[in-house]
Order: sequence, then C-alpha cells, then structure tokens
Amino acid sequence: MINIGILGCGRIGQVHARSLMRFDAARLVAVSDYFPESAKALASKTGAEVRETAAILTSDDIDAVIICTPTDTHFDIIQTAAKAGKAIFCEKPVDMSADRIRECMKTVETHDTKFFTAFNRRFDPNFANVQSRIAAGEIGDVEIVTILSRDPTPPPVSYIKSSGGIFRDMMIHDFDMARFLLGEEPVQVFAVGAALVDPEIGKAGDVDTAAVTLTTASGRICQISNSRRATYGYDQRIEVHGSQGMLRAENMLETTVEAATATGFQKSPALNFFLERYEAAYLNEIAHFVSAITEGTVLSPSIFDGLRAQIIADAATKSLDLGVPVAL
Amino acid sequence: MINIGILGCGRIGQVHARSLMRFDAARLVAVSDYFPESAKALASKTGAEVRETAAILTSDDIDAVIICTPTDTHFDIIQTAAKAGKAIFCEKPVDMSADRIRECMKTVETHDTKFFTAFNRRFDPNFANVQSRIAAGEIGDVEIVTILSRDPTPPPVSYIKSSGGIFRDMMIHDFDMARFLLGEEPVQVFAVGAALVDPEIGKAGDVDTAAVTLTTASGRICQISNSRRATYGYDQRIEVHGSQGMLRAENMLETTVEAATATGFQKSPALNFFLERYEAAYLNEIAHFVSAITEGTVLSPSIFDGLRAQIIADAATKSLDLGVPVAL
Amino acid sequence: MINIGILGCGRIGQVHARSLMRFDAARLVAVSDYFPESAKALASKTGAEVRETAAILTSDDIDAVIICTPTDTHFDIIQTAAKAGKAIFCEKPVDMSADRIRECMKTVETHDTKFFTAFNRRFDPNFANVQSRIAAGEIGDVEIVTILSRDPTPPPVSYIKSSGGIFRDMMIHDFDMARFLLGEEPVQVFAVGAALVDPEIGKAGDVDTAAVTLTTASGRICQISNSRRATYGYDQRIEVHGSQGMLRAENMLETTVEAATATGFQKSPALNFFLERYEAAYLNEIAHFVSAITEGTVLSPSIFDGLRAQIIADAATKSLDLGVPVAL
Amino acid sequence: MINIGILGCGRIGQVHARSLMRFDAARLVAVSDYFPESAKALASKTGAEVRETAAILTSDDIDAVIICTPTDTHFDIIQTAAKAGKAIFCEKPVDMSADRIRECMKTVETHDTKFFTAFNRRFDPNFANVQSRIAAGEIGDVEIVTILSRDPTPPPVSYIKSSGGIFRDMMIHDFDMARFLLGEEPVQVFAVGAALVDPEIGKAGDVDTAAVTLTTASGRICQISNSRRATYGYDQRIEVHGSQGMLRAENMLETTVEAATATGFQKSPALNFFLERYEAAYLNEIAHFVSAITEGTVLSPSIFDGLRAQIIADAATKSLDLGVPVAL
Repeated sequence: MINIGILGCGRIGQVHARSLMRFDAARLVAVSDYFPESAKALASKTGAEVRETAAILTSDDIDAVIICTPTDTHFDIIQTAAKAGKAIFCEKPVDMSADRIRECMKTVETHDTKFFTAFNRRFDPNFANVQSRIAAGEIGDVEIVTILSRDPTPPPVSYIKSSGGIFRDMMIHDFDMARFLLGEEPVQVFAVGAALVDPEIGKAGDVDTAAVTLTTASGRICQISNSRRATYGYDQRIEVHGSQGMLRAENMLETTVEAATATGFQKSPALNFFLERYEAAYLNEIAHFVSAITEGTVLSPSIFDGLRAQIIADAATKSLDLGVPVAL
Repeated sequence: MINIGILGCGRIGQVHARSLMRFDAARLVAVSDYFPESAKALASKTGAEVRETAAILTSDDIDAVIICTPTDTHFDIIQTAAKAGKAIFCEKPVDMSADRIRECMKTVETHDTKFFTAFNRRFDPNFANVQSRIAAGEIGDVEIVTILSRDPTPPPVSYIKSSGGIFRDMMIHDFDMARFLLGEEPVQVFAVGAALVDPEIGKAGDVDTAAVTLTTASGRICQISNSRRATYGYDQRIEVHGSQGMLRAENMLETTVEAATATGFQKSPALNFFLERYEAAYLNEIAHFVSAITEGTVLSPSIFDGLRAQIIADAATKSLDLGVPVAL
Repeated sequence: MINIGILGCGRIGQVHARSLMRFDAARLVAVSDYFPESAKALASKTGAEVRETAAILTSDDIDAVIICTPTDTHFDIIQTAAKAGKAIFCEKPVDMSADRIRECMKTVETHDTKFFTAFNRRFDPNFANVQSRIAAGEIGDVEIVTILSRDPTPPPVSYIKSSGGIFRDMMIHDFDMARFLLGEEPVQVFAVGAALVDPEIGKAGDVDTAAVTLTTASGRICQISNSRRATYGYDQRIEVHGSQGMLRAENMLETTVEAATATGFQKSPALNFFLERYEAAYLNEIAHFVSAITEGTVLSPSIFDGLRAQIIADAATKSLDLGVPVAL
Repeated sequence: MINIGILGCGRIGQVHARSLMRFDAARLVAVSDYFPESAKALASKTGAEVRETAAILTSDDIDAVIICTPTDTHFDIIQTAAKAGKAIFCEKPVDMSADRIRECMKTVETHDTKFFTAFNRRFDPNFANVQSRIAAGEIGDVEIVTILSRDPTPPPVSYIKSSGGIFRDMMIHDFDMARFLLGEEPVQVFAVGAALVDPEIGKAGDVDTAAVTLTTASGRICQISNSRRATYGYDQRIEVHGSQGMLRAENMLETTVEAATATGFQKSPALNFFLERYEAAYLNEIAHFVSAITEGTVLSPSIFDGLRAQIIADAATKSLDLGVPVAL
C-alpha cells in the first residue's frame, strides 16, 4: 500500500485522483491547492484530507506526492519532497530551465529519490504499443520516425510570449517521443519554422508552424512537424519505419461512426483535446507509478529524460535562429 | 444533489460507483452486497457507508438505487424500492419473464416511480451517435438496419441451459438496439439458427449461431446475426441504411496502431469484452440517470422498453421452433 | 492461341475487347453488332474484322464467342454456337426462364460445349480473394455470410416492369455470391421486402428494398439485403464469419484521399457504377476464360451455376408473395 | 484526331499503347524498338505499323511521339522531334544533366514544341484529387506538406552506381510532387541520409534512407522521407496540412479485404510496384496528352518542371555532402 498526496487539485489533479481509485495498492491520503475550495471539492469525492502543501511534503503518512502545481513551483517542491524522502510524480516540464532541471537531478540523485517525469504520451496505449513492439523486434531496426503533432487552436499570444517558444512548449513532447522510439540519442537537430497561423505569434518572436529533423549517430532519422492549429482537432500521430516493417498509430476519433452520403464516407473528428485524447495515458502513468513504487521497480521516464527533452528543445530553438543544424 | 445507494458491489457495481465520482450532482451514500467484504472494499474507495440492502431501500437519505444484484432478486427489490419512492436504475434484464416484468411495470406506474432499464448499448457513444443523427434526419427515413453481434467465446453449457436461450440471453440486446434504431415497432420476427460453434449447445436445446429478420408495419427491415464465438474479439456493429444516406458504427479496437509487413496492414483486435467495450456507455448511462433525476427529465429506456425486448425474444424463440415468421 | 469473336459491341463488348489485348494467347478475329458502326468502331481499334453474327458463329477461324447481345437473343445464339463447336462466354443472365436455361444446359452437355456464365463478381479481386481464402481454410468452417448490395439509383419503372422483379434482376448476383461463399447449397429461402424507395415500383408489383435469409442443410446462414438506391454510390460488400475468423470485402472508393476538417475525416464516395466497380473483374473473367480454353482446364461458373441462381431468385419471389420460407 | 508514334515498346510503351485504345481522338500509327520483335508484338495487337525510330520522327503522318526509350537517347530524339514539329510526350527524367535539359528547353522554346514531361504521379487519381482540392481552396493556404515514399526493394548496387544517387533517381518524383502541392517554389533544401538498408549502397557512395526539408519564401514547409526498402510494398503517401483543413492520400492496397482473427484485423499489402500502383496515372496522363494536343490546351508538367525537379535533386545531393541547407 502506498499513501499519496496530490498537490494541485485542478483538472489534472482531479484526473490523477480518479485514476488512483482503480488501484487497491494506492490510497489518496491528502490533497492541497492554492484555492481551498478546489481541495475541498476533491476531498469530498475521495475521502482524502485537505492539507497545506508544506504539510503534505513533510507528513509521515505520505509516501509519494503527485505534483500538479504551476511549473514555477516545481523546483522548490522537488527539493523539499526529495529531502523528505517522498517519491515524486512530477507533471512536465520539470522546469523551464535545463540548468535548474540539472540541479533537481542532483538533489534527486543525492537523496536516491524515486522520480517520475510525467511524459504522459509514453503511456498512451497506442504509442506504448508501438514502442513495445519495436522493443520486441517486430519491425527490426528503426530507420525513420515520423511524428505529426498539431494542436486544435493556438494559445493566446500572451501565453506564447512566456511559453519559451514552440520547441520548448509544444514540440518538447515530440522530442521525448522521438527519443522513446528512435532507440538511440539524437546527435543533431535542424529546425525550420514560420508564423503561418497567426502573424501576431511571429511578432511575439515565435513560430506556429515548425519542422525538425533529428539524426542519430548510426544514421537513424526522425522528422517532426508541428502546427499550432488543426481545424480537424488534436492531431497526434506517429510512425516508425524499420528494416522489417512499419508501425503507425493513428488519431483517436470521437466515435467509430461513418456516415455515407453523396459526398463520401465521413468519420468523426479527432478527440479534442488532451484530457480526452490522453485519458487512458493518464490512467496508465498512474498505474505505472503505483506499481513501480510498491514493487520497487524502475520509474520511467526519469528526470534525465525530462532534462534531455529540454536540451533538444533548446538546440532546436538555436537551429531555427541560426538556420543551420545544431549538434546535441 | 441526488443521494444514491448501490445494491451489489461486483464488477458492474464498482463501475457505476466510479462513474458517480464524476458528477457533482450525485453523492454515493451507501453500498450493499451479499458479501460484506465486497461492500467494504467499495466503501473505502468512495467514502460511502456499508448498509444492508433492505436498509438502503428504506433509508430516508437515499433518493435512488442502482440495482446490480442477480436477476432473480430484481423483482422483490423493485417492488420494495418503488413503494419506498426511490428512483430505480435496474441492470438488465429486468426479469426473465415477460409476465413478471409486466407486474413490475404496474407497480412502477402505480407509484409513479422513475425507472431506468440499463440497456447500456444505447449509451455507447458510437451507437448513440448513430441514433441521434437518425433522429436529426441526417439519413432521411430508415429503411434497412443491419446488426452484427458476436461474443468472443460461448459461456459454459451449464450457463446456456439456464439462460433462456440465445434470443433471450444474447440477442435481446440487439432487439433493443433494433427498436432504438428502426423508429417503428417491429410487427413480425423470423428466426433461423443452428449449433455450429459447439454441438453441446445444440444438445442443451439451444443454438449458438442465429439470424433474425424483423419487419415493421411500414416495411422497414432489420437483419440481425449473432454468434456465440468470434476469434477476433467482441464484435459489435450496427448499420442503418436510409433514404438519404447510411450510418454505421464499427468495432472499437484495442489501439489505433497499424503494423505493415509483407503480409499486409494489421490493426489491433476488437476490445474484449463488454467491460472494456462499453466503458463509455456505462459512464454515459449514469450521466443520463443522474441528470434526468436531478433535472426531472424523462428516463429512457423505460421499463416498457425492457418488456418489449423480452417479448421479441420470446417470439424469436417461437419462430425458430416453428420455422415460420411470428407476428408481434 | 485462341481465336475469338465478340457478338455485341456495346459498352461491355468493348470492355472485353480491351481485356483481350492483354493476353498473348488470345486473338480478337471478328466482331459483330446490330448497328454496323458500333462494330466498325471497335474493329478499327483492334484490327479485328467486322462480320455478321451468323457468320462468326459458323466461321472456321473462330474458336470461341463472347456473347454480349441482349438477353432474349442468348438462347438461339447458344444453340447455334454449341452445335458449331464454339466455346461460349455468355453474359448473364443466360436467360430469364429457368426452363430455357435447362434446355440450353442440355444442348451444352450434348455438344460438350465449353460454357462460361459471366457472373463477373466472382472475379472481383476482393470477392475472389475472400473466396479463395475460405477455400484455403483460413477462417475454418463458414457459419454466417452477410451480403450488402445496393444500387446507386433505381432503374426506370418501365424497366422494373419487365425485369422479372428485384430477386431475378438484382439480387440474383447476390444469390450467386452466396453460393460461391457458403460452400454448400442453400436449401431454404425466406424473403421480405417493400417499396420504400419509390411507391411507383410498388404499384408495378415489385419491391425496391428486400432482405433474404438463406440456410443450408448443415445450418449455415446467409443474410442478404438489397436496396435500389444508395445516395453514397454503388454499395457492394460481403462478409463471411467462420469458425476461425472473419473475412470481409469493403467497398472500393473513388480515391484513397481523406479530407480532415472540423466536421471530421471524409473519404471519397464508392465507385459508381458497375463498369468502374467491376473493371478488374471484367479483366479477370476474360483471363480465366482465355486460360481455361487454351489450357483445357475447367470453366467456372458453369451454366449450372447460372441455372441455380435463377432457381433461388424464383423461390425468393415466391417467399415474398406467400410470406413464408420456401424450400429449394 | 492525332496520329501517334511510340518509340520503345517495352513495358511502359505497351502501357501507353493500351491507353491509347481508349481514346477516339488518338490513333496509334507506328511503333519502333531497338528489338524488332518487341515492336512487331505490339503492332500485332494494335494494328500499328513497325517503323524505324528515325522514320517515325520525320514521318508526315505522325503528329506526336511518345518517348519510352532509354534516358541517354532522349536528348537526340527531342532535338530531332522538335525540329520536325512533333508534339513530344517524354518519359522522365528528360535527362540526367540539368544543363542538357536546359538545352532541350531552348530547342523546345525555339520550335514552339508541345512538350510533356511524364511525371506520372501528378496523374494518380489520389494525388491529383488532393492537388485539385487544394487549388479549389478546400483546405485554405498550404502550410505543411508531408511525403512518405518507399520502394519495396533496393535496385542492384550496379544500378545504384550509375543512378545519380537517391535524390536524382528516386526522390526526384517527390520533389516534383512537392512543387505540385506546395503552390510555391522551394527556396531552400536540407538533406540527411544514411545507408541503413544495405552497406554496399553506402560503399557505392550513395544513401538508401534519406529525409529532406524544403522551405518556400513565405515559410511553407515540405518534409520528404525515402527508403529504398519497405517490407510491406510500394509505399506512396502524401499529406497536406492547410489553414482550413488537411488532405491526405493513403496507399492503394491489393484488395479491400480485411481478415479478422485473434491477432487483429488485417488488410492486404500495398500495390506493388509502380506499374500496378500507377496504372490509372498512366492512363490519365495519356488522356491529358491527347486532349491537350487535340484541343490546343496547355500541357503540364512542362519541360521546365522537368528541369526544376532536377535542380532540387542536385541541391539535395549537395546538402547531404556539405551537411548544411542549400539555397535554390
């Protein structure tokens, strides 16, 4: 049995609380939130107590914390929780700065903290299936990875300005996915991009349409493309071409219904947005966290994975600025 | 706010309890089960109390009950709950006998009971989408309904013997679906069938492979086929041909992954079995029940729908025996 | 090398002429048509001679004839061609009367004529693939066959009146397909139907929407449904459920293009009409005819197959009239 | 009526001859081949005469020539045919050297020659459909083009050595497709690649796995990936993401059949190889050529398009060598 505290009772905190209901090996003991009513509402549905974040971090009856608070609070929480010996489930990004992630990594290593970076997409049943079949050798050696990732609509320009740019804010998920699928570390990144969706995004110094080429030491290639806007929903596809075959994961649609009329055969739009699209992934990552903690197995992705994705995002940003490939 | 008691804490009771977590308008107050540990386990995850079934049925702090107990207990529970003024969510079948359902219907009418027959498939997002688009006129007048329904594996022959036969045990879901989609009551049923899957099922007096043709007064047609065994999983498809187009709902597969090799392009098997396949349906039927009770809107399907499906199943059984069409 | 004459240079005669170009083992020697210009036009593209039909039937330099003339001319042509020792490729139906087909069958047997009934759908690459995989045992024993067949638009009511009715005019293709796939002769047919598309068709004594259930001696089931109108094109699908799996052939669409917009993912309409849909089938049936003649192997479907489909159509018509199943 | 000579009676010459049968406006007058028997065989199926290539190029009764001879003969044939006033249908590539194509272009301009560069993929019904819908504004402004193109198996290393490399030999088709779909000229190319399929290809100085990023002046992006080997057949897909939606063309499969077994739902492999995959494209390009000549409309793609694709291929080769983006 593992006793858990959830820090941050917003949408994603609620999702994790609901997931915990499914596992006999986990007990949600306490929740906290900047807004007391949010914490209270979640507590009433689960029987958990409402506590202060600081109290949860140091409670003896808490084995692990799930960090769902704003990104700029992660650093301090991680330091405190690690020192208190808690296992940590941290929503991504760990931090916006690679250097600060490195510092967290040191703390985590020093205290031998069980640390989980919540790159939820690795737990999507479709993407996880692709990866496990690659690992099982089903398509031989990986040669070309293709990742198509598009958000339904761009965030407000105000958000864009403080987002760190498309590579750190959006494509970072795809960089982690690339590492997950390539089976080798990328050694070079080349990025192109433009503000095609909204010129205001361009004025804010960012792009909204971008494409990246990653290459590994042995010559494996990954092509990623991002757009901040897809009229047809949240577009999330991956494809891996290998020496013995190909695996691809298609979008999840709202329904399996197909309508046939004079204009053709029409299926539903893609699930929109991440809470729906990655609902199973959120459940599966909690399942992994709970079982890894209770059974003492390895947590993955680790804080190193969180760092590595950030480093690629930084390099892609530089490649776009300079117009040349950047070594990793 | 509606206060709810769950009677029966097996798999389906747990599913309903988890669904209730999602709705602010509902509170799970109490649970009961023949096995006290089952009730206790569910209570601990939800903060609900453990009570005796009889106590729940008469508690003042309970507005509605969700009946997940064995079918042969439904009749008495319905009588008591209706008299106590509780709203009722009843797992199907309401009862194995059309006459006893008629008696329940009288009780329900007498006490003006809010009664919901849990034909969960109507709440499958795919099938519900088909029906709502028909109702919206998207494909004009319904002309031909095709229902393909196959279980992954047959139940034990011992179960078959007390099941009432394939039409009452399995195809009854499809009869309800046919009524849901046809937009008119069937007036005739013709059934054929054979024991092709397992001769033991034939010796037990039942068939495991069956096909039915329903017709309505205006000439609409529904073709249904059932098999007790599909090597590729739980096969659940519907299709409706109308004057202005066609709507069909395909199977839900385990993943969206497609593998390409020299033998072709392979997708995952179908979701298997009903707990996975109809997971969203179970959530949606609770959503409907909660909102209909709290907002005072109509509950559907009603006990009449439960009765009607039973009547068609009885007639199909007779048609198979006699070898001729039977009027409804 | 086989020397061939084509009788009838309309659309289908031209299709066969073009197919013959592909085979070194066949030479198109002569063509005939009621309209001399039609024959001339086809001759100029192929280097074939224009002759009278009677001349082709008795020419020494003709080994085989392809009959593409109107149905009511088939009987006499078959008699003459059989007596002259020609191999015969006959467009379906062989004749509108089962009795006259029986008479042709006798002639064919007497003269040991190589006779091919052009049920082209058996040569559709999709349907042929399904059948050959069944024959190879890929899905074990056949249990349920489902055939969905819908024309894009009804023919004129004037045509309906002399068509022999939907079962002899349209569903006869599906009866042949059922026999092709079931692996056993149907022993009973039950038909329902109504005029839902056009009341004028009803006034003409026919139905435009029909469903049939065929059963075989061992209990195999085939469900067929037809509509004279499908807004989404020519709908031609089959599915076979067996003890070890399922095989289905989907519609062929105009393109593989999918458009994604806010309303979802849209594919092209189905190929429309039979000349496009069955283009490959027309080529493949000629390939079969040429190779069977030149290599002395068995021609299939035979004139018996032509007869058998007609008999089922007659029985289905009777079942619809009487409202009860009819034995075959 | 247009009188046509076919130069080269190999596989592709035969395909074009068969296509010509379909058009009343075209007459195949003469054929030539280095091997007289090849010419004779094609003549016997079509009624065309066998002549010498030189004779066809200067015959008064020839309006247009279809050049299906080896690439190194194109230059001289084009010079002669242009001077003789013939319309020219030229298989791609026009020539292996951009400079020699430029010289042909001058000749063609001088003589006002009707010239068609046979980039057949533009006439694939799927790709053509995508392009025409883009042109019609269906998805708004083009933003990201994705082209996935993989051959079933690599050619012999001996062929690779004289092929000009993967970009000039294989990806050149995709460069033309990129121009066809982008709606703007690419201004920069960045290429990566490796010999992952066969180290011998690497030793021969080429790569067998390659990815290219093209960008246009306004910021539109095209990502292309190629592999010389796909175990699942000839993989030919395109996708265009625009401001108002997305269009994609999937592979054409051998059949529409899907088999369902315990391992999932399996479809046929992709059509393999180009003669099957692009059968309709070959017909459609002839249709375009015939109608453009007879109706005096514009032939497209032009010799300029042939040149432009070659220039991009040269630049991609340079980018791979240098490891940096190359301006176009």
